[in-house]
Amino acid sequence: MDLHHVGIATPEPEAMLERYRALGYTLEAEDELPQQGVRAYMLESGGHRLELLVPLDPETPVGRFLERRGPGLHHLAFATPDLERTLAELAAAGAPLIDEKPRRGFGGHRVAFVHPRWYGGVLVEFVEAGA
Amino acid sequence: MDLHHVGIATPEPEAMLERYRALGYTLEAEDELPQQGVRAYMLESGGHRLELLVPLDPETPVGRFLERRGPGLHHLAFATPDLERTLAELAAAGAPLIDEKPRRGFGGHRVAFVHPRWYGGVLVEFVEAGA
Repeated sequence: MDLHHVGIATPEPEAMLERYRALGYTLEAEDELPQQGVRAYMLESGGHRLELLVPLDPETPVGRFLERRGPGLHHLAFATPDLERTLAELAAAGAPLIDEKPRRGFGGHRVAFVHPRWYGGVLVEFVEAGA
Repeated sequence: MDLHHVGIATPEPEAMLERYRALGYTLEAEDELPQQGVRAYMLESGGHRLELLVPLDPETPVGRFLERRGPGLHHLAFATPDLERTLAELAAAGAPLIDEKPRRGFGGHRVAFVHPRWYGGVLVEFVEAGA
């Protein structure tokens, strides 16, 4: 399965955009996801993506993450061509799904999250997308 | 600049290998890095890599990371064709370098780390490699 992006929680997207631009990343798109409580900036370089996540409010999952752990690496996202099938396989294997059904994610993609305890402390998102 | 790998700290490499194998990753190589105090497992899938980091001792940077934050995402590594030049550019920009000179990293590559405060809480490694 291909890595779709690496999510990074930050309260300062402008400063981070500048830092990652210096590494050759460009801003591919931005989107507001009220259901996830974030504004997101997708950066791209050589087929790799970083997603900067800025909480819309302190009382959101990413807001609480920043309060508890500070800014930094937040999640890994993998691309799957068939999200419902991936979720069914994970459920059959006993994975603790945060989303039992797909929800809307960045850019209108269908997404679902799996609890970090399944992946050794790593919050994992699956994105229905080519790659 | 291309993403070289995503580093993940874990005390349980075998369980994590099994989880990531289910996502299509294969074990590309493993290496012991006494200078960094870790045993590392490089996983690969579709040109992307995940590096599982297991501390050799609790009193190592990754051992203290596990104690303080628990297992999970640890660092991002970018590939550079000329590490000395990258370090010189970062130093000129005011970046706080953990390693002012390259040191030996996974598989014999020359590597250097930059303090996470430069990248919004993300520990960043530069690896002298093609991609």
